[in-house]
Order: sequence, then C-alpha cells, then structure tokens
Amino acid sequence: MHDEPIMDVAHLGHLEVLTPRPEESLRFFVDVMGMTESGRKGDSVYLRGWDDYECYSLQLTAAKTSGLGHAAFRARSPQALERRVAALKRSGLAEGWHEGEFGHGPGFRFRDPDGHLIELYYETEWYRAPEALRPALKNQAQRFPGRGVNVRRLDHFNCLAVDVRENREFFERYLGFRNTERIVLDDGTEAGMWLTCTNKSYDFAYTREAHGVRGRFHHITFALDSREAILQAADVFLENGVFIETGPHKHAVQQTFFLYVYEPGGNRVEVANAGARLVLAPDWQPIVWTEAERRKGQAWGLKTIESFHTHGTPPLPDRHGDELVAGVDDLAGSGIAS
Amino acid sequence: MHDEPIMDVAHLGHLEVLTPRPEESLRFFVDVMGMTESGRKGDSVYLRGWDDYECYSLQLTAAKTSGLGHAAFRARSPQALERRVAALKRSGLAEGWHEGEFGHGPGFRFRDPDGHLIELYYETEWYRAPEALRPALKNQAQRFPGRGVNVRRLDHFNCLAVDVRENREFFERYLGFRNTERIVLDDGTEAGMWLTCTNKSYDFAYTREAHGVRGRFHHITFALDSREAILQAADVFLENGVFIETGPHKHAVQQTFFLYVYEPGGNRVEVANAGARLVLAPDWQPIVWTEAERRKGQAWGLKTIESFHTHGTPPLPDRHGDELVAGVDDLAGSGIAS
Amino acid sequence: MHDEPIMDVAHLGHLEVLTPRPEESLRFFVDVMGMTESGRKGDSVYLRGWDDYECYSLQLTAAKTSGLGHAAFRARSPQALERRVAALKRSGLAEGWHEGEFGHGPGFRFRDPDGHLIELYYETEWYRAPEALRPALKNQAQRFPGRGVNVRRLDHFNCLAVDVRENREFFERYLGFRNTERIVLDDGTEAGMWLTCTNKSYDFAYTREAHGVRGRFHHITFALDSREAILQAADVFLENGVFIETGPHKHAVQQTFFLYVYEPGGNRVEVANAGARLVLAPDWQPIVWTEAERRKGQAWGLKTIESFHTHGTPPLPDRHGDELVAGVDDLAGSGIAS
Amino acid sequence: MHDEPIMDVAHLGHLEVLTPRPEESLRFFVDVMGMTESGRKGDSVYLRGWDDYECYSLQLTAAKTSGLGHAAFRARSPQALERRVAALKRSGLAEGWHEGEFGHGPGFRFRDPDGHLIELYYETEWYRAPEALRPALKNQAQRFPGRGVNVRRLDHFNCLAVDVRENREFFERYLGFRNTERIVLDDGTEAGMWLTCTNKSYDFAYTREAHGVRGRFHHITFALDSREAILQAADVFLENGVFIETGPHKHAVQQTFFLYVYEPGGNRVEVANAGARLVLAPDWQPIVWTEAERRKGQAWGLKTIESFHTHGTPPLPDRHGDELVAGVDDLAGSGIAS
Repeated sequence: MHDEPIMDVAHLGHLEVLTPRPEESLRFFVDVMGMTESGRKGDSVYLRGWDDYECYSLQLTAAKTSGLGHAAFRARSPQALERRVAALKRSGLAEGWHEGEFGHGPGFRFRDPDGHLIELYYETEWYRAPEALRPALKNQAQRFPGRGVNVRRLDHFNCLAVDVRENREFFERYLGFRNTERIVLDDGTEAGMWLTCTNKSYDFAYTREAHGVRGRFHHITFALDSREAILQAADVFLENGVFIETGPHKHAVQQTFFLYVYEPGGNRVEVANAGARLVLAPDWQPIVWTEAERRKGQAWGLKTIESFHTHGTPPLPDRHGDELVAGVDDLAGSGIAS
Repeated sequence: MHDEPIMDVAHLGHLEVLTPRPEESLRFFVDVMGMTESGRKGDSVYLRGWDDYECYSLQLTAAKTSGLGHAAFRARSPQALERRVAALKRSGLAEGWHEGEFGHGPGFRFRDPDGHLIELYYETEWYRAPEALRPALKNQAQRFPGRGVNVRRLDHFNCLAVDVRENREFFERYLGFRNTERIVLDDGTEAGMWLTCTNKSYDFAYTREAHGVRGRFHHITFALDSREAILQAADVFLENGVFIETGPHKHAVQQTFFLYVYEPGGNRVEVANAGARLVLAPDWQPIVWTEAERRKGQAWGLKTIESFHTHGTPPLPDRHGDELVAGVDDLAGSGIAS
Repeated sequence: MHDEPIMDVAHLGHLEVLTPRPEESLRFFVDVMGMTESGRKGDSVYLRGWDDYECYSLQLTAAKTSGLGHAAFRARSPQALERRVAALKRSGLAEGWHEGEFGHGPGFRFRDPDGHLIELYYETEWYRAPEALRPALKNQAQRFPGRGVNVRRLDHFNCLAVDVRENREFFERYLGFRNTERIVLDDGTEAGMWLTCTNKSYDFAYTREAHGVRGRFHHITFALDSREAILQAADVFLENGVFIETGPHKHAVQQTFFLYVYEPGGNRVEVANAGARLVLAPDWQPIVWTEAERRKGQAWGLKTIESFHTHGTPPLPDRHGDELVAGVDDLAGSGIAS
Repeated sequence: MHDEPIMDVAHLGHLEVLTPRPEESLRFFVDVMGMTESGRKGDSVYLRGWDDYECYSLQLTAAKTSGLGHAAFRARSPQALERRVAALKRSGLAEGWHEGEFGHGPGFRFRDPDGHLIELYYETEWYRAPEALRPALKNQAQRFPGRGVNVRRLDHFNCLAVDVRENREFFERYLGFRNTERIVLDDGTEAGMWLTCTNKSYDFAYTREAHGVRGRFHHITFALDSREAILQAADVFLENGVFIETGPHKHAVQQTFFLYVYEPGGNRVEVANAGARLVLAPDWQPIVWTEAERRKGQAWGLKTIESFHTHGTPPLPDRHGDELVAGVDDLAGSGIAS
C-alpha cells in the first residue's frame, strides 16, 4: 500500500514583491489592477484582491531592485504547521521563525534549493471590510471594486531555478506538494514544473534559469473570473500604457488562458483565468511534455515569446546598474499606447 | 415597382432625461455607469459613453419630475434634414427650429402623436478627447474608462404611447423609420413596436401606455460589448445598491440580452448587448407577435415583470406629489444590498 | 488545539440517476448536453463530460420512476477508504461492500439519515479516449465535443431531506465534509446546507423536503467554463424544446451562476459556472443565511421559483401513477419552443 | 452643400469560394464551422450560417485551384440596382447580366480594377427553414445548430490588390461604398483599405498584393456573437486539426477580435466578433494609419504574422502545380494536433 499524501499545506497565502519604483508600482496595483490597500508597515504596502479572504495577498516592498521578497503558504492546521517545520528543520534549508508580520501569526522561513525565501504560517487575520467596501452578498470578502482589471485573488507564482528538478523534489518531499505537469528536455533536464497543494492544477511553478543566477522571480498571477475578463484587462492595460509582453492566449501546459504585463518596477504580472479546470484526482500522474511538444508553441499556435525565457527579476547582474528596472525602460517605446 | 425606402435619418443622437435628483443621478451615470461628463449648460449636464462619436449622448436635466425631455436623431445630410423638415411641417405636429443647443447645430423639433418631444439635426460637434482621456487606438473616440459598468454608447430608447400604431405610422411616414417587430393583441390593438433607421434591429420602441396618460418615458438603453459585460454590470449595480428591476435575461422580441435598473431620479435604465444581430435586409418584413406568444414570457421563460407594464416616468399624476420620484423610494427596501 | 480536519474524501465521483424514459434521457445527455457514452451494463448507460478523468460521472439507469440511484465519492487513498468505512460501520447506517460495478473497484455503501444511498470507493479506472476522441492537448481527458451544451464535468448534486441538519452532521462527523454555507429559518430549522471535501465551495447540498417524503433528489449539476457558456446553453435548451425551469441567474447562496432544466425523465439538471470561486481557507466558518435574507431572492433580485421548493424526483407518491414522470408532461405546454 | 451619400448597396450577400478539395472543404464548413447546406447546383454546394436571412452566404465550388469565384452584394431596391448598373456600365469594367443562379434573381456582374469578379442583385429568396431546423424564436432564420463553431452569418471578405487605392476609388465612385479606415505607407502607397455600405465598420477590405499577381483572395469572415465564442472556436479548430494561422487577438485597425485558419482547400477563413462597434456617423472621416503605427503590430502587441502578407488564394503561380492547395500541405506538420 502506497504512502498517504501529505495534506499539510492549505494554499498560497501571499507574495512579497520588491520594487525600485514603489509609488508607480502601487498606482499600478491599485488603479490598474483594481486592488485595495489594506495596510502599511515599514517599506511595505499590503494589497488585496476583492476575493482574498486574508488581509492581503500582495506585500509590495520598496527596494533597490525588483524581484521576490518571499512567498508564503498557509498551513492547514497548527499541527500541520508543526509537522512541516519539523520536516524543514531536517532539510538543512530552514531559516527559522519570523514574527511580527502584518496580518498573520508566526511564520517559519526557509530557502528553496535555488535560494528563494519561503514562509509557512497558520494563524492569520481574516479581512474585515470597512463600511465603504462591504459587499452586497455576505459570502464575499469585499465589495467588487469596478475599477480597472478588478483582480479577484492571488492565484499562483512562478520562480526561475537553475536546477528545476532539485526544487521540485524539495517541495514534494518536505511540504507534500504534488506535481501535475512538467517539461523534460531531450537530455533529461527538467525545464519546468508545476506544483499544487489544492484542487487548482498548480499553486506555483518553477522554470529553468538559463543564466546561472539563483533566486530570480518570473511572475505573480492574479485570477480573473472569465476569459472575457482577461480580454477586457488587455484593453485596460493598453489604455494605461502598461507594457503587454504576450497574450492573451492559451498555454498548452496547464491550459491557462494568460496575459503577461510588466508592472512599473519591472516585475512580470499575469492575469489568468482559473476557470473550471480542477485537478480532483488524488492520484494524478504528472503530464510530461517533451522538447518537441513544447516547440509547437502555445495551445493555439502562438510561439513562446523570447523574453519569456530571459526576463526575470531582478534583472541579470551583468547588466548596467541603471537597467535594474529593466523591462519597463527597454520596452517603453514599443507600446502602441506611447 | 415599390417606393424606395427613405434613408434620411442616420441614427439616434441623444436623449434628454429629466431628474428630480440631479446630483444623485449624475453620480449614478458617472460613477456606476462609467460615463464621462463633456459639458454643462443651464440645468443640464452632458454625458457620453466612450464610443459615442458626438460630444454627448445623454443630456441630464434637473427638473421637478422625471421623464423624457426630448429625443434627438441626426439626419444623414443637410439635404436629408431639409426633406424631413418639409415633411414634418405637413404633419401638423411640427414645433419649429431650436438653436443654441450644446454640441450640435440647429434642431427641428416636433411632437409625436403621443406628445413626446423629438428633434432632428444634422450639424454636430465631434468629440475631441482631452489628453487624459485620449485612447490608445486612434479609431476610438475616448479612452475605455475601466470604471463601473463602462457603457459603450447610447443604443436605443423606449417610450410609452396610448396609441402605439398611430405613433408607428407617424415615424414611418414622416421620417422613414422601418418597423422590424411588433406586438398585436387579439383585439387588433398594437401593444408594442420597434423601429429602426440603421442596421441595428431597432433604434427605439414604443409600448402601450395602460393608464391613458400621454408623453411618458419607459427607458433609455446603453450598449455593452458582450453578455458577460452585462452580467458584470449586474454585480456592479448590486454592489452599488442600485435597484435591479429585472434581468439579466434574453427578450424573445428582438432577442436583446437585457438588464433593467432604476437610476436615482426614478427613470428606468437598461444595459443591453447590441451583439452581432443586425437587420441587413432592406426589405425586412415586420415580425408580428401575438398575445399568446407574448404570454410565454421572455426567451428562456422568465415571466415579464409586472412593473414593466406600469412603471414609467414621470410617475402617474394621480399619485401623491412626494411620489414623483417613484421607483426609488418604493423599491429601496427590496434590494438585497440595502 | 483543535482537532485536525479529516481529509479522507477526495471528490464526488459519479451519480446514478434513474429515468422512466431511458431512450429520451440518453438522447438528452448525449445530443443536448454533449456527453459521451463510455459503456453499458444491465439497465445502465455510463456517460461522461470531456474533462471527467474517470470513465464516467453519470450512470443513467432505466427504472420505473425518476430520482437518485446512488451518489458515489472517491476516497483519497486506500487507507482513507478504510478509515471512513470503519467510521461508517459505527454509524448504524452502513450497507456494506458492493463489487463488480462498471469502471471502479469495490464500493462501500451506506444510507444518509434521509435514506439516500451513498457509496465510497478508491480504486478507479482512468478514462482512455479512443482514437476519434483523443484530445489535441495531452493534459485533457477527452476531445472537446463541439456538440450542444458541451458539459465539462460533474460538479455537484442536491438532495432533499426531511431533516437537513441531521444529514449535515452525519456527513461532517463520519466523512469529514466541511459546511461552507447554510440557511437557518427563524424557528431554528435548517432549510439548506452546502458541504465540500475539495476547494470547490460545495460538492453537494441538501435542502428541505417540505412533504415529509424521504430519499428524494433535487438536481444534478454539470460544470461549464464560463457564464457565457451557460447563456449559450440556454439557447441550446430553447432550440431543443427542453423545459427551462429558472435561470440563467446568480444565486445569492454560493454565488453560483445557474440554469435549471428538466431532462426527459423528469429529473432536474443544472449547468453552472464553477468559475474562479474557491474556498481555500482550511478554517472557513459557515455563512449562515436567515429567512429574511433568503426572502430577497437570488443575487440580482430574481424571486426563487415556486417549483424549486416542490419539484423533486421521484414525484410525490400521492400523485397518480401516470404522473411519475412529472415535470415533463405537466410543463411541456409552457415552453415557447413547443 | 456636399453631395448626398449614395445608399444603393444594402449589404454583402454571398461569396463564391473555390476549392480543389471540395469534399474536405464541405466537411470543414458543415462539421467544424457549423454551417447548413441549403442546396446544390453544378459544381457548387450552397451553405449558410444560422442567422443569414437569404438562402445562402457561401457558394462552395469545386475547382482546379482555390480563391474567390465571385463576391455578391444586394442592392437596396430595384431602382437602386438600376442606378448602379447604369453607373457600372460607364466604368468600362461591366461584364453584364448573369441569370439563373441559385437562390437569387438576375445579377449584374463586373470586375474591380484588380480583376476580381463582383455581382450586384436585388431579388432574392428568403430562407425557409425545414421543420427540423425551425428556430424556437420566430425572429430568427434558423435553429442555432449547437455544432462546432456555430458561425452566425457572413460578415466580410478581404481581397488582395496590386493597386489598393485604385480599387477603393472604384468602389466609392461607382457603388457608393464609404471608406472608414486605411493604411498609407510613407511613400504614399495605400497598403490597405476598409469599405462599408452598412453600419458595420466594414463589409470588405483590400490589402496590398506584394507579388504583382491580380485577382487573388485573402480571406472570408464569419461573425460570431462574442469574443468568448471565438475563443471556443479556437478550441474547436485545435481539436479538429485545423491549421490556426494567427489569433485570437485584437486588430488595431477596426479593432476586430480575430482568429484566422485555413480551410482544407487552402483558403483563409476568419471568425470575428462583430460586437457592438458600429459606424453610425453618416460623415465618418477615414482613419489613416501610418507605416510607423502599423509596425507596432496588433492592438495588444502581437506582431502581424509574415504569412498574412504572402498567403493568398490561389497560391502564387510560380510555385509548383502540386502546391496549388498550399497552406494545408505546407503547414500540416506544424499543428500541435498532428
């Protein structure tokens, strides 16, 4: 009889994203993405989508450069948190408890093998909407804003990793994430992997870092309700002069309907349709995509854009200092809106 | 050989809507409907959807009660305007030229047989978006606002009439409108008629006034791009405490996907999906719906709501003075949002 | 420290639905709903949506009357199945193991307190599409059919129960289902409850049986990808003369975008948008709706249709024998399509 | 005072498309596109979308190669037809009356300056649906099929022309079409132009033939109801192994939401969202796009695909005979579905 699945991680809780242009990034997330500010502390502003049940899902932190501050998952119970902390301590990658954060209780921090900082916590503060943001229906966290893209909730994130397989096995072994899809190149190298702890087909993904630099970030993704909402988002981005990197189109891997833009700090942001696609099978076997299959491009034939394999945050260190906000300056001239 | 069709009226230009609660009505049209103010003059504020090519499509006028101020159509050419004015002068219902209006040239005003004030003009002022509202694509009048319901453009209006047939024949004879659908009761009475001067299947409709009062208004309709946009509008109305009278659903007549609400002044407002349905046939024969057919309700079976046959603006005169803003006060308590 | 949640049930697997008109019901599910037949055995035909990963999600069984044959859930692991069987044996409602069923391994059967037959199994047969139904994308179970309503997968079901609370507590205690929303009347009676074992906000619901009859069925629901797909379904139902009971509209409870029809055997069938709404919180507290709140109708104001409280399958026993297929005969004349 | 607009052409009626693979092309239009066969005559099969009011909108003709047989417009009245025939006779490009065609009365045929065959007719046969295809709503031509892409109606076509401007001026002068948008290169050459005789923003377009060959065809377009319907179409094409050239995406010019595929005979076919965008202004001034503006790609940044400038039908004559069905054979290996 097989081992039973570990069910200790409940869901992705929030991401801390770093930005060298904090004011412009904040305006982007509030005015264009339609998020709501739920607090400030130190160099950080805390933001939420109208369906996020916790206080926030995005911690936007002013920093010298762009990239991921940390990613945080909520454990399923206090006991589940204890079990995972015990396991992580055996991993050699534990950093220890981190307290006093805005909106949630003690978090246990650790590094993944590629060096990204990850946090696990259980205690959390449920969002209580102020009068002006109270929804009409009591089973909803916050009023639908009717502003810009109106992102619903945090959906997933994507990091780059020099060794994708090593990172996958780390998250599987120590945290119980399940791998639903992956890309394996002809030489056996793993070029991408998608992991889940929920019925969503992935809660995060790691794709290959082609430049040997560790700890870089690929994108953060917010869920919208429909593909039509993503097309509307494309128009909102166009009107606001936001650089659209690629999409809207449908990924072959995971079949996500995607749209990628760069926020003013240079970080890649995706809006995607979570849709009705769920992985319900408890014994789902990973879909393995070959190099030849991936060469065919996205679901409806769009070729994968080159920058998707190169642009990450922070920008590569061998570039000049003034390019630390890359993506925005480089690409600003190419938008039809400019 | 048949007479050739009269093609002198180009399209519905704007409606003047009266409101006893001008500030609240303005906030509704700007904040909830997502319209843009393009000017003020006297007791009127002029408003537009982002795809209206003229300066405005809605003239919102402070008044003692609610209802229609006037409806205005644009002629196809100066010569077309002259021809129609000559015809209208023969009708016995002409009122004469009206000059100095905001945003367009001289208008010729007349009454339909039920007493509604109608205007015909040719010269007009094209909208020129200020810098902040300039669209990314040069073939668009104004930036997509990303606010509330984001109505696209004025689509049509609906008046009540004591004698529907008399009004239909007036618009057909003197202005060349074509009747695409109508409802004829078992006793031969015409209960509704839909007229067009474009490829839209109707530019306005008249339905039967059951209370013998002349000149009342049923609703003004703005076009949205998709049925999904109308469902999103329903959520925006819900969140803003706007009274939803009926819908979203699909009319059997004209197959319009509809959603009806009351603005703060008491006037009924519809958002509808213009969609891909067009009447392209130059010799379209009117669809005649019988009483039995209409008894079946709307396309997917929704029963026509009773207030749809009774609520018009201004409210019926035999009601008390303080009920002149009816619809809002009466119905305020029934919204789940309240 | 609280007890840890029981995570032993993975998801709803399939429903057995009884029909006195097996040929017509089969045509409905295949031609109108767009399902695929995956096998036959005895009096049953097994059907699937294109995204169901198991062989089937609907067992359609010829019978004297309509209603639910049984509902089946898949356990998360063999150990999880053992634990639940042990618990169920203590409940006094166990029926015992049931073997030799089409498409899955041994199932443990039991009755809920209202008498519905429920089954729990772990071993299952994954669907293998024949050449003609092989999808273009390898992460999909079956080719998208492009036929009728194109239902994606089984989503949930709804039973009637004389004592709703008793049934909720049974499923919570013995199977670990979590209650996300419920309706409690002013006298404390529970009128409806929604339970989940996944991140969907419910996998099934029980609503109050007003006629004192046990074991009746309210509806089976299939998921579609978007609200637009549900509107398209409404047109497909209309064109095929299928009786539409109510919708499309949005429920206040659970915010489901719904559309209810009756299949030829009389059973109520729903298509709904699973959408992006997920319950991710492991400690979600039930939303409790009061009688006053429910009186307000559905989300956008639609009044709950009367038959929603009365029509269940099989029809009530005090009716005449020839009305056992009720719903279809009674209502056939009211469709505009007839 | 300006000349009055000519309003003599009512709308695009049908296209005759040639195919060297008639059986496969027919299966594509019926099974994948969801069209209905309404008749056969000689080497032609006549097909229709469910909302086309005439008998057919597509005449599919078996031929040695692919391309456009002819394009036909319906005049607004018998008198309008006479006026246009008189004008065309003065143009030097008239071919004369053509009688006995399936589904409509006498047509007057002429060549545009690039050599494409065009027809103008007035008398037509309205479609009468057989019992099995009768719609539920009497204001609809035919039952919604619920099969494949479910195209609604013919929307527009696009030809290639060596001299775009010459062709534009021909259609403006002799037929009264109005130019809504055009592309003018830096050297003054017209690279594309869009003409309308309705409130649709274009009924056909001509783009530049870069290879000096006359009379070639670029694409035929059918209207769908929503952008979501076009995304669904992309999935249907993917599942059926149909080559997707580009899209879904939004054109900057005309803002059409597009999706281009090749039918088995090699002709490019588009499905597009007619949407709520209408040109209502009778004095619309053409939008002129510069070379620099067009270099920016489509609305949301997609680069225009190279084959869009080269692939037309019939294929270029300097290619080998067996490539006359180009597009299909060349591209068959590139689809992810293969």
